[in-house]
Amino acid sequence: MNPVFGAWFSLNGCGEMTGTTWLEESGELEGPVMLTNTHSVGVVRDATIAWRIQTAGPDASGYYWSLPVVAETWDDPLNDINGFHVTAADVAAALEGATPGPVAEGSVGGGTGMVCYEFKCGIGTSSRVVEVFDTAYTVGVLVQANYGLRDELRIAGVPVGRSLREHRIYSDPDPEVAGTGSIIVVVATDAPLLPSQLKRIARRAALGLARNGSIAHNGSGDIFIAFSTAGDALGRNDHLLTFRSIPNDALDPLFGATVEATEEAIINAMVAARDMVGDQGHAAWAIPHDDLQEIVQGERP
Amino acid sequence: MNPVFGAWFSLNGCGEMTGTTWLEESGELEGPVMLTNTHSVGVVRDATIAWRIQTAGPDASGYYWSLPVVAETWDDPLNDINGFHVTAADVAAALEGATPGPVAEGSVGGGTGMVCYEFKCGIGTSSRVVEVFDTAYTVGVLVQANYGLRDELRIAGVPVGRSLREHRIYSDPDPEVAGTGSIIVVVATDAPLLPSQLKRIARRAALGLARNGSIAHNGSGDIFIAFSTAGDALGRNDHLLTFRSIPNDALDPLFGATVEATEEAIINAMVAARDMVGDQGHAAWAIPHDDLQEIVQGERP
Amino acid sequence: MNPVFGAWFSLNGCGEMTGTTWLEESGELEGPVMLTNTHSVGVVRDATIAWRIQTAGPDASGYYWSLPVVAETWDDPLNDINGFHVTAADVAAALEGATPGPVAEGSVGGGTGMVCYEFKCGIGTSSRVVEVFDTAYTVGVLVQANYGLRDELRIAGVPVGRSLREHRIYSDPDPEVAGTGSIIVVVATDAPLLPSQLKRIARRAALGLARNGSIAHNGSGDIFIAFSTAGDALGRNDHLLTFRSIPNDALDPLFGATVEATEEAIINAMVAARDMVGDQGHAAWAIPHDDLQEIVQGERP
Amino acid sequence: MNPVFGAWFSLNGCGEMTGTTWLEESGELEGPVMLTNTHSVGVVRDATIAWRIQTAGPDASGYYWSLPVVAETWDDPLNDINGFHVTAADVAAALEGATPGPVAEGSVGGGTGMVCYEFKCGIGTSSRVVEVFDTAYTVGVLVQANYGLRDELRIAGVPVGRSLREHRIYSDPDPEVAGTGSIIVVVATDAPLLPSQLKRIARRAALGLARNGSIAHNGSGDIFIAFSTAGDALGRNDHLLTFRSIPNDALDPLFGATVEATEEAIINAMVAARDMVGDQGHAAWAIPHDDLQEIVQGERP
Repeated sequence: MNPVFGAWFSLNGCGEMTGTTWLEESGELEGPVMLTNTHSVGVVRDATIAWRIQTAGPDASGYYWSLPVVAETWDDPLNDINGFHVTAADVAAALEGATPGPVAEGSVGGGTGMVCYEFKCGIGTSSRVVEVFDTAYTVGVLVQANYGLRDELRIAGVPVGRSLREHRIYSDPDPEVAGTGSIIVVVATDAPLLPSQLKRIARRAALGLARNGSIAHNGSGDIFIAFSTAGDALGRNDHLLTFRSIPNDALDPLFGATVEATEEAIINAMVAARDMVGDQGHAAWAIPHDDLQEIVQGERP
Repeated sequence: MNPVFGAWFSLNGCGEMTGTTWLEESGELEGPVMLTNTHSVGVVRDATIAWRIQTAGPDASGYYWSLPVVAETWDDPLNDINGFHVTAADVAAALEGATPGPVAEGSVGGGTGMVCYEFKCGIGTSSRVVEVFDTAYTVGVLVQANYGLRDELRIAGVPVGRSLREHRIYSDPDPEVAGTGSIIVVVATDAPLLPSQLKRIARRAALGLARNGSIAHNGSGDIFIAFSTAGDALGRNDHLLTFRSIPNDALDPLFGATVEATEEAIINAMVAARDMVGDQGHAAWAIPHDDLQEIVQGERP
Repeated sequence: MNPVFGAWFSLNGCGEMTGTTWLEESGELEGPVMLTNTHSVGVVRDATIAWRIQTAGPDASGYYWSLPVVAETWDDPLNDINGFHVTAADVAAALEGATPGPVAEGSVGGGTGMVCYEFKCGIGTSSRVVEVFDTAYTVGVLVQANYGLRDELRIAGVPVGRSLREHRIYSDPDPEVAGTGSIIVVVATDAPLLPSQLKRIARRAALGLARNGSIAHNGSGDIFIAFSTAGDALGRNDHLLTFRSIPNDALDPLFGATVEATEEAIINAMVAARDMVGDQGHAAWAIPHDDLQEIVQGERP
Repeated sequence: MNPVFGAWFSLNGCGEMTGTTWLEESGELEGPVMLTNTHSVGVVRDATIAWRIQTAGPDASGYYWSLPVVAETWDDPLNDINGFHVTAADVAAALEGATPGPVAEGSVGGGTGMVCYEFKCGIGTSSRVVEVFDTAYTVGVLVQANYGLRDELRIAGVPVGRSLREHRIYSDPDPEVAGTGSIIVVVATDAPLLPSQLKRIARRAALGLARNGSIAHNGSGDIFIAFSTAGDALGRNDHLLTFRSIPNDALDPLFGATVEATEEAIINAMVAARDMVGDQGHAAWAIPHDDLQEIVQGERP
């Protein structure tokens, strides 16, 4: 994997994303973006380094050092987080198994133990295609979503959380519970953008998040990363590099796409998840699809 | 005016707020927050300094130097912005006229020439009272709102902009017009908060803005400032200062209040404004109240 | 003037540089960098806008709005700063008079009332030429320097301030005086650099400043801006932009040049200045050249 | 360990310090600051979590989650960094072995494989005691130093690197070698400071670093963290917290102390280290003490 331009933004910092200092400094993302649980960031980080070294082939110079990007959300109590169950082998398997094409959603990978607005949640994705100067570009968003209290949930602007009162695992019986959890948003695009522009993209993910009702609770790590795959000339070379970029004045379609795709990816993460019983019988229930449709369509309050 | 704790955040930087470098460094807001149009920031800044010197009385040492906070939005074409019509006398009058109590909304002061989602807009305010540890605190928000395209407008989650098609002054006839404009959000609270906490409050204003549909257009200066009036011990003294603050773990009610009050203040800015014909016949129309109510209440699409 | 890539950094924020929010957001510097005194930032800012409009010619669309970069240092008591003596005509004259070639140093322009390490100071410049990939690039630094106490001064590593005890206008008789003042550093280069790289350049100016003994006093506004004139393709166009840049791995020569040129420009600002008697008889004395040479060369302690 | 106020600053980001996002957001440092090599950050991070859980006793609620601060520098080739030799047991031993009192310097702990200005280096410490309002406060600095090329080294302002030409392990025979390496600076103080003030302290460490000749090479991770042990009221409580702080206007002595102690700690790290032969015979030589003294004292060039 060649480095690509990248940038990040933290709306609320009660979370971890390693590698951000170098990402900010260099404007370059030099490897995969890994998602896991809070207490497994370390093993995933070091195992990512090890895997890159092992798979680099005879000429491993490009992987001589690395500062991997690993982000996390909290998956306890569905997972026994202090059991430290994620292993280096899991990391290698995830990296080996990465393929182009649709990404599994719901309770998979780092998303396995996620809970969102007190519904079972996980990984969600969404994308938009926009045209700039007669060229089509894709903005793809992947979220690992694990935040929010039921009352706060809005879908398509409808405050559905106030109508869906069952199975509130935090706010029932304590309506004053502090919100915790986190969300990691990864925005990928093939639009040619500079690092300073990707930071602007990353910041728009916060607007998509807000549309679903988030107030970014104190205990939430709401951290966003954006990268562009278009920087094909990027790398450590012995000559001047050449880049193309969309001018700032033409970025609005990409900004809108980022907001919309983030808004939708979170919903998709909830809709794709299924009821789960986890560690020690802790359970989380999926959002009820039929009820949700009726409420959004105004067929019931 | 004694200094108070303050902080700021820029969601999108196509705008100006002077004084932010010192605000960021010191954590202290040392004078009024002034709002004006883009090309009058300078005169307002220097006139604020002059007014403070003139009114400081015999002991002006506290005002020996200052780095005023002045923010702006673009009021052309309703105003002939390159006429530079704002004067030092206007600034003095505004400062002399400041009083406690309700703030005028709509097309007043810096808000005179504002346009929001292609409706006439201006100054809007809103507040929430929340309890933390059995004490009530107020979060008050004032916006000078001047951003957005009609299609983007959501009110209470309802995409009303798609139904209110009249008098689109930018997107009709050009639906592909780039969004411009800006919004300045001022959050004031009597809750005791440290500068690092006020920065968190300022960032939540972005979430309130997003709820109304903003995507933070490239050309928009979306800049937020938050301050707390509770830091009564603050100042330049010859002894240790003592502060109280709400612990981070108890901030969620204040975060929620900031999001909600920002969301509402923007609506209030639109609802309070009236049709205006400005420079050279340029006009902006207020949002139609009756239509708006019907759409939000689901009585018509 | 076409926009160029730019970035800024604040080491200590007790100062003002307008326009930084947009500079940070866009990565583009869209007009001149203006330097003045603390209480004249406003008039310089608005007058810069007015001058750009007036001189834009028939096609003024490129100057329709602007957010000028204006920075300041404190020139009282040599100047009667609260007399607000800088006028719009001064600004226009400065802009009209700008020419390529050597820049006047010492007590000129915004540097007129400057004092550095309690010596008369002002504007200083320095530059370095470095080779990257067999191409020569220039790094030019201009400072408006107005900071520091005598004891702190190091020149070429030699603690000359401890030997030059005459005419200490702040620390004599009060050795415990708090340091104030500020420094603005402007770094210009023809090396092709992205905004994210120019921020790195701006940060290196702090290292040059440190070499002369600065501790960045609380009351100092130590603010740096860097821009590259190589971004010839930059602008508001209707097509993809193309840029060249030096890869990060080859930036060290430019980093070193920035550190060295900043270190030297400050010395040059002091050496070029002459004794001055200012407002109400306040005086500042130039650093004594002969004594300085002897001390640096080890001919006297 | 109760949380204390803390802040961080990155001068150059080619390095890793985990936990900074939450440190920035909360202003609180909630556990130890761990230093290791680049490819062991992960194991140290997770092992720190595990150790805290294991040692928390019956009431482990305070350690329910954590986002440890772990920083690194590159210790290859003295260490076989891709051997991943640091283990969870090493981490536990380091935490168990931490005691008040003098800290070992030179080639110990994370400092074992360090090289600075091409001399053997490691851990260095230094401190200053300053008085503010008749109270004495200590500023202590610990560095893990691993940066710089020989030519750049200045000690007490004297360019000693140009005179000490032996054993240049990077720049001989290639004088054009790019600088790599990194430095982590930890500043601890018992002065009562707010998070926003500790960020100012952290930034001053860069000035101390600069005095020794650093230009902050592209490949260097120059990352600083500062914390105050005076925030005794800090914690997660059910009532308002109360803090004391030194006012901004009285911070200069602490700023000066930070600059000086950082400058000295780096020298101490070099002086304390001894010649080392590491992995595969790679060697690094200590700075020659006698030669160094003669050069600094002007007894030889």
